[in-house]
Amino acid sequence: MKMEFKLLHKDKHSRARVGKLALAHGEMDTPAFMPVGTQGTVKAVQQRELTCAGAQIILCNAYHLFLRPGIEVIKKAGGLHKFISWPKPILTDSGGYQVFSLALLRKVTDEGVQFQSHIDGFKHFLTPEDVIGIQKALGSDIVMPFDECVHYPCSKEQARLAMERTIDWARRSKAVELADQALFAIVQGATYDDLRRECAERLVEEDFSGYAIGGVSVGEPKNLRYNTVDIVSVILPEDKPRYLMGVGLPEDILGAIEQGVDMFDCVVPTRYGRNGTAFTSQGKITIRNSPFINDFTALDAQCGCYACKNFSRSYIRHLFNTEEVLGLELVSMHNIHFFLNMMSRAREAIAQDRYAEFKKEFLDKYNAK
Amino acid sequence: MKMEFKLLHKDKHSRARVGKLALAHGEMDTPAFMPVGTQGTVKAVQQRELTCAGAQIILCNAYHLFLRPGIEVIKKAGGLHKFISWPKPILTDSGGYQVFSLALLRKVTDEGVQFQSHIDGFKHFLTPEDVIGIQKALGSDIVMPFDECVHYPCSKEQARLAMERTIDWARRSKAVELADQALFAIVQGATYDDLRRECAERLVEEDFSGYAIGGVSVGEPKNLRYNTVDIVSVILPEDKPRYLMGVGLPEDILGAIEQGVDMFDCVVPTRYGRNGTAFTSQGKITIRNSPFINDFTALDAQCGCYACKNFSRSYIRHLFNTEEVLGLELVSMHNIHFFLNMMSRAREAIAQDRYAEFKKEFLDKYNAK
Repeated sequence: MKMEFKLLHKDKHSRARVGKLALAHGEMDTPAFMPVGTQGTVKAVQQRELTCAGAQIILCNAYHLFLRPGIEVIKKAGGLHKFISWPKPILTDSGGYQVFSLALLRKVTDEGVQFQSHIDGFKHFLTPEDVIGIQKALGSDIVMPFDECVHYPCSKEQARLAMERTIDWARRSKAVELADQALFAIVQGATYDDLRRECAERLVEEDFSGYAIGGVSVGEPKNLRYNTVDIVSVILPEDKPRYLMGVGLPEDILGAIEQGVDMFDCVVPTRYGRNGTAFTSQGKITIRNSPFINDFTALDAQCGCYACKNFSRSYIRHLFNTEEVLGLELVSMHNIHFFLNMMSRAREAIAQDRYAEFKKEFLDKYNAK
Repeated sequence: MKMEFKLLHKDKHSRARVGKLALAHGEMDTPAFMPVGTQGTVKAVQQRELTCAGAQIILCNAYHLFLRPGIEVIKKAGGLHKFISWPKPILTDSGGYQVFSLALLRKVTDEGVQFQSHIDGFKHFLTPEDVIGIQKALGSDIVMPFDECVHYPCSKEQARLAMERTIDWARRSKAVELADQALFAIVQGATYDDLRRECAERLVEEDFSGYAIGGVSVGEPKNLRYNTVDIVSVILPEDKPRYLMGVGLPEDILGAIEQGVDMFDCVVPTRYGRNGTAFTSQGKITIRNSPFINDFTALDAQCGCYACKNFSRSYIRHLFNTEEVLGLELVSMHNIHFFLNMMSRAREAIAQDRYAEFKKEFLDKYNAK
């Protein structure tokens, strides 16, 4: 079984939709937020805590895992799920973005990418086929093809080149045989409407299991990203899941759900968590700040996570001030709960044709302070 | 109820003993190991994980908590148990050791100690009465008096002065009224047999709830510490708990249990855990080492903790190599389990008059590699 996507309901008043995605390692409800476990661990959050928060899928990064611990180790462990002890679905990102943002001295040709590891400077050459081979060895449920990311801003000429290469690489990736793994394609084209349209149309013709919108959250203004999603999502087929890569903050996710996006991933909950910023139903709070010295309430009174059920803002502030690991753990865990709970409420609202009201209520409260 | 200590059984072939200590926040079995939560958190271990590991008491440090977050915050929280969300017994160390090892520009007089905070350089003056007052506000189950620690080596003259002051301060501490909290005394005297004897005898005359052997693990050779414990423990009354401060490694704890010690605390399980050293039934392992690259067994096959039940040495090595917080969490949690499980097995062995066999078997296996 590669993948089965059931579109369960479309909101009557927006393009928001709820669905169920069946993958080799289980089912997931969409719209879904995927906690990011780049190196095979969602930073400062235990696997059992992800389960407890309701995570149905996590994202790992093929580039990082290829460099450390290396694919041979994970193969010997019996695949990525076993290696990291996460039995539910995993999406692996190809590492296209990381090669372009982290690796040193990269040289991109149509054949593939030569780069130096950002860890030890060791030289590697990877073709799109290699990258699928890596993910095949990892055994992830959803596989992303190698793509060429461009920075923002980027000339149209450069954007077209990267787009052509991304399409070509997606085709080559599709030619690699996969058994239980679903291959998505990534729509590139920077902020050029015609390129985005063309890229989406040409990839749809190739019939992938799902479609991602890539090359966003790379520094472009929010309205341009909104526009890109708008243009692309109407081209993508209704019966395939749509994944907006690397997005984002609660307001961004809720906006994109309204545009018909089904899947999200972002480092925000855990990165903010490690910095002591907690997401709450009444907005973000920076726990180190002095108003919390004597605040003995939970991070979010409406949250049922371990952090909120047991510890006060005052205590968590103390943990951050004294650089105690438990602080990172509690806020990261809470933020993951917050994001997953938001998704669950969004799905419920869509199913009841009241997504716009839900979004407004949620954001009014979230932005009130 | 201040404290009730029941000596349940004495091993027929050694001075090892099992007992039960009833405190304001619950009972604990002795010999006991107290995980160290200096700043109100056992580093990288969650409170629910301590419970799961079988911790019946933890140690916190009055000096650290006095500096951060400050006693007023903890009072407003309703006491230390509520502030840190740990409903079971807490022993608070007075901070004598910390004032002498961490604080800047300290000046010790018979009246008390003037020092500068190691965090912000702020000047403080604390009398022994103040230190008991701080612990009264914290609401810990067992309170330690302020004592004067000396370094190793230390002249006899200096050791005598510190001992006299420690006895005087213990008396003054005893004069402070405490309701539900038990006050221990600390035996000092450096490595001088006659001073240790005299200090123990004079403190026993004063009738404290329990007795600690302090000023050990300060750099002295192991045989001198062994000797100190030997000398002091025969003087201490049978019907009061005996606490060897800051000890230690498994072999040290097992040795001191044989000498009749009931309580231990040490940062070793969590400090080693954060450095990637795991205690196992077959000795310590340094998880970063290359033999573990493809070792898919648990840290300790005989351990039932979350880390051992779910994750391999290979994965945990990867977490340390990539500096992921989960690595610290898993090894720290496991080490706490290891120490507490060792104590539980020691108690069982004493109850069955086979402590010497247990100790030999344990250490033979532990030291085999």
